[in-house]
Order: sequence, then structure tokens, then C-alpha cells
Amino acid sequence: MTDRPIIALDVMGGDGGPATTVAAAEIARIRYPKLKFRLYGREDAIRAELAKAPRIAADAEVIHTDGEVLGTDKPSQVLRRARHSSMGLAIEAVKAGEAHAAVSAGNTGALMAIAKLTLRTMPGIDRPALAALMPTIPAESVMLDLGANTECDERNLVQFAVMGAAFARTVLGLDRPRVALLNIGEEDLKGTHELKAASAMLKAATDLPLAFTGFIEGHKISSGEADVIVTDGFSGNIALKTAEGTAKLVITLLADAFRSSALTKVGYLMSRPALRALRGHLDPNNHNGAVFLGLNGVVVKSHGSATAKGFANAIGVAHDLVAEDISRKIADDLARFPAAAPTPAEAE
Amino acid sequence: MTDRPIIALDVMGGDGGPATTVAAAEIARIRYPKLKFRLYGREDAIRAELAKAPRIAADAEVIHTDGEVLGTDKPSQVLRRARHSSMGLAIEAVKAGEAHAAVSAGNTGALMAIAKLTLRTMPGIDRPALAALMPTIPAESVMLDLGANTECDERNLVQFAVMGAAFARTVLGLDRPRVALLNIGEEDLKGTHELKAASAMLKAATDLPLAFTGFIEGHKISSGEADVIVTDGFSGNIALKTAEGTAKLVITLLADAFRSSALTKVGYLMSRPALRALRGHLDPNNHNGAVFLGLNGVVVKSHGSATAKGFANAIGVAHDLVAEDISRKIADDLARFPAAAPTPAEAE
Repeated sequence: MTDRPIIALDVMGGDGGPATTVAAAEIARIRYPKLKFRLYGREDAIRAELAKAPRIAADAEVIHTDGEVLGTDKPSQVLRRARHSSMGLAIEAVKAGEAHAAVSAGNTGALMAIAKLTLRTMPGIDRPALAALMPTIPAESVMLDLGANTECDERNLVQFAVMGAAFARTVLGLDRPRVALLNIGEEDLKGTHELKAASAMLKAATDLPLAFTGFIEGHKISSGEADVIVTDGFSGNIALKTAEGTAKLVITLLADAFRSSALTKVGYLMSRPALRALRGHLDPNNHNGAVFLGLNGVVVKSHGSATAKGFANAIGVAHDLVAEDISRKIADDLARFPAAAPTPAEAE
Repeated sequence: MTDRPIIALDVMGGDGGPATTVAAAEIARIRYPKLKFRLYGREDAIRAELAKAPRIAADAEVIHTDGEVLGTDKPSQVLRRARHSSMGLAIEAVKAGEAHAAVSAGNTGALMAIAKLTLRTMPGIDRPALAALMPTIPAESVMLDLGANTECDERNLVQFAVMGAAFARTVLGLDRPRVALLNIGEEDLKGTHELKAASAMLKAATDLPLAFTGFIEGHKISSGEADVIVTDGFSGNIALKTAEGTAKLVITLLADAFRSSALTKVGYLMSRPALRALRGHLDPNNHNGAVFLGLNGVVVKSHGSATAKGFANAIGVAHDLVAEDISRKIADDLARFPAAAPTPAEAE
């Protein structure tokens, strides 16, 4: 698509602020030397951090704004503030063609609302979806929607399947990802009307670069049996957060257990390298970078609490999506899948 | 309610069959010396196991049947076979007043269908729900519905809240359990119409023996911040199974990590008591006994793969529900909560 992908960074978003996001850009530049950055936020704060980031300082553009979207903003305030905020301006840059992708660690709901309003939904898609990588026993899988759409019909779900498969091809490097619909049983007669209809549509669509494997239950999300797990935004959000909470539960219980006796305390000291490896596999920073799929432009959301290295991973996701032109992949697949097309009345 | 609670056991259900279920009854009898059993299944197999279970053998009644509900049965087959199966006869005994509760480790869907058809829904309840205990960081919480109802309206949800609170008072020994609705955000404007309406109804119902705390997100299920987590059967099933899968993921990664070097292998050996304690806290056997709440009778579902000790825990749950007369608690609470009453057209 381009020789030098340009990333518009919301420098102010996230818990770490400019210290984290600018350092992340520097790390990403080491991994992808051709990346260029447009940095949106308070100029004095950005310049202070750029002094410690020589690689990107040479050709980064700094666009000053005092405006910020706050986590406490109401939806009405978010959209009013959008035009002057670091988040809003970064997305605006994608629309204006000044950047290829926007990356922000700001509030998810605000980012979604501004991105949808600014970039609009791409042709052939009824509703954009939030997708991310989940850790599995063998490696990682894609799950979507993670909360953008509370209720979804069958066409939303099959469009998510197409978008999620394109994402998995791009980010996981798979030729023909295995795609499954999240359900409360594997039998055909289980679940909602929408799930059964989506399953029938995906079974019939044999011409796509994905392998539809049917329904999958919650306990198999982390098994790696599917590369892409498709669900509505309500169930997806519940599953994502339940997985987070359960991982925390197990690790907390483990720490308590290690503190239970002198012997296990010694065992803990000797096991530390193993426990570090475990934490690394589960660390959200290593799976960072949720993507709003289905917009006319690439927008990546970092965890609010990401480290510089974690935020650099989100920038890496943006880089891959731009370099591999995900929007074109999705458009090509949709063109081969007429059943998934929006009806004129519902299309935006 | 009764001096000697009588439990109708589906001896044939579950992976372990009579060897597990009869041994479990013997264990339960040690814990609750007044329990009596009616044992449903193949008489020869039951008698062989009773020879090893002297405590219950003295006064257990054995009711022979060759019929069994199989996990592979279609819903139509289940109901046709119900009348002659060990599962169906155990539930029939509750209806006939020959037992106070039925316990089975057989197929969940079959048990639900037969229990609903045989015992019917109790007055004031539109739909029964499946409830169970989930491990949390401090101890355990109740979650429902775990899969009985794919789609739920606001009145279903508030009825689940009343039933779940009565269950928590009975099994967790709480006076005024904290009840929360599972949602994708904590703010009032998040989630479906049904969730918002249920929240408003529960906020207004200040006269009940429960403390409604609002919405809770998936990552807080295991935090212990709510004693009862209320949700529709689709999301509840996804959350339950995702938690199971994630616990397995973390423990698998942990085992891999321990195998990674000689040092961590030694650390593992020294940490074994700690890891055993962790497994114990997470072991489904220690949280065994899901309950169908809202029927005219007590029906408890054991995990299919439960050990004898695990199945004995499910019998223990049945004992507590009978001893504390859960149906009366639910009926009393519903009488104080007119907003939760079914409309005549929808009531059975």
C-alpha cells in the first residue's frame, strides 16, 4: 500500500500518557524502521519525550492540542470534544489521508464512537466490530466482537466472520483460518435463531479463504481449536473479561498457595523463571492491540494500562494491517459472499 | 421440613456410574447421618455396590429399571424414555412425594427437560434457572442462569435474582447476599433493554433479603464483590465455560513452565503442596451441585465427571436445600415483590 506507513498517535490516551506512548513509538520504529509518526497532544509534553526518542524525533510531526477525551466523559461530551482532542485529531488524520492508521490507548467507547462517526462503516459492512487476540494453549486466536455491538443479527455475525478471518490471515499469518461461532453447545439445534442462521450461511459460503468449523463452546476458546471465534459484542465482552478475571483468580490463588509454607516459599524461588514465562504468555501487553474492523481506515486500541512495549505491540498491529491492506482483503472476501451483503435499507 | 430427608438418586447417570454414585451416597450419609436414599437403576449393579456401602445399605430402597437417558439422545427421545429411565423415575419420586430431592449426574439438557415437564414451574416463576457455585478469590459465589434459558426478559432476570439470593442464603449461609446483574459495563446506560429494566426493578425492591449492587462485569465474577451474579442462560453458560477453559489454560501453561528447566523441575517438586491447594480450590468437585431453581421440587445436577466425593457434595447441596426449605424462601420473597410477578398470560 505504501513505502512508509504513517501512524497517527493519540499521545495523551492511556494511563502512562506521553512517556509511554512516545517511548512505544521509538520501540516500534526499531522493529519497523520505515514507520513514520504523527503525534497528537500537548506539544511541550511531546517534545520533552521526543528528546529521549532520537529515532522518531528526526521525522515525527507534532500536532499540538490541549483537548483530551477523558474516561469519565459522557457520550455526548465525547463527540463534542472529539474535534479538538488528541484522539479525535488522530482519527481525523486517517480520514484526511495524512496517516494510514490511528492508535490510541484512550477510552474504548469514545474511540469507537469517534472512529465510526469520522471514518464511517466500509461498504458491505453493517456494523464495525472490535477484534483482539486471545492467548490459547498453543498460541493465540482472534475473537470478535468484543463489545462494539450489544445485539447482533445473523448478517452481522457472518460479516464479523469474514473480517475476523482477514485479521487472522494478516496478524497470525494463516492461509485459511478455522472460524467458529461461539455458542452454548456444539449441536446444530443449540443457541439463538441468529446463530443458527449465521451457521447455515457460513456453511454455504465455501468459496471464502476460511474454514468454518461450526459452533464452539466457551471452554474451547483457549484450546486453539478455532483461529477465529465469532460472537455478538455482549457475549464476547463477557467471555473476554471472564477470561481476564479467571486468569487473575488462578494466579492469585497460586501466589497464596506459594506463601503457605517455608517449603513452598523455597519452591517458589526456584520456580520463578517458570512463573515469569507463564505471566509472559498471559500478559495482556503481549497480546495488545484491539482493532475496530469494518471502518474506512485502520484504528487500533491499546490497553489503557499498557507498558511502552505493550503499546509498541499495538503499533505493530496497526503496521501489519496497513502493510497487508486489510480493508482490501475484507472487501475482496465480501465480494465473493453475496449472502453477507447488507440490505439497502440497513446499509449506511 | 422433615426429620429424615429422602434423596432420590439417579444411580446410572454420570461417567462413573453406580460405583461412583453409591459410594457418594455412603460419603454423604457420614456427613448427614439422617439422610435416606432411594436408588434408581439396574438392581444387580446397585446391590453389588451396596455391599461396599454398609451405612446406607441398611435402609436404602432400590428401584430397578433398565432404562437410561443417554448423552447422545435427541430431545424427543429423552422425553419418550423419561418415564422408564433412572433419571425420570428419580424425578417422578419427588413429584409423588416419595423423595424430597432428586440428584443426577446425567445429561443436563435431559434433566432440565424431564424435571420441568414432571415437576412444573413453581407459582410466581416464569422459567426455572440453572444455578451453581463459582470459585472466587475469597470463597464462592452463586451464578445463574447457566444455560436453561437462551433468551431472558427483565422479569425472568429479577426472578433469577430472587431465586439466586435464596440459594446463597441457604448454601453460603448469608443473611443478605449482594446481588449483581452481569453486564458489559457498570454504568446505568450500558447493556440491553432487559438488563436496564431489571436493574430498575431490583433497585425499587428494597424490601427483599438481598442487597442489589447494580451491574458487574465479567472480570469481577471471580472477585467476590457479588455473592449472586444474575444473567441470561446464554451469557451465563459462556461465562461459566470460559472460566473453566481459562483455568485449564493457566494450569497447562504452568505445568509447561515447570517442565522448562532442571531448576524449575526441582522448584515444582518443592511447590507441590501449594499446587495441590490451588487445584483443590479450583476443582469442580469442590463446587459440585448445580440446582434447577424455580421448580416444584428440588433437583440437583452433578458434573458428569464428578468423583464420589464430588457427587457427595452435590447430595449435600440437595440436603441443604431440603433442610432449609428453599421453595418456601423463594415463595415468601416473591410475595413481597409484586413487580416480579408473571403476567397471567405468560404464567404456566
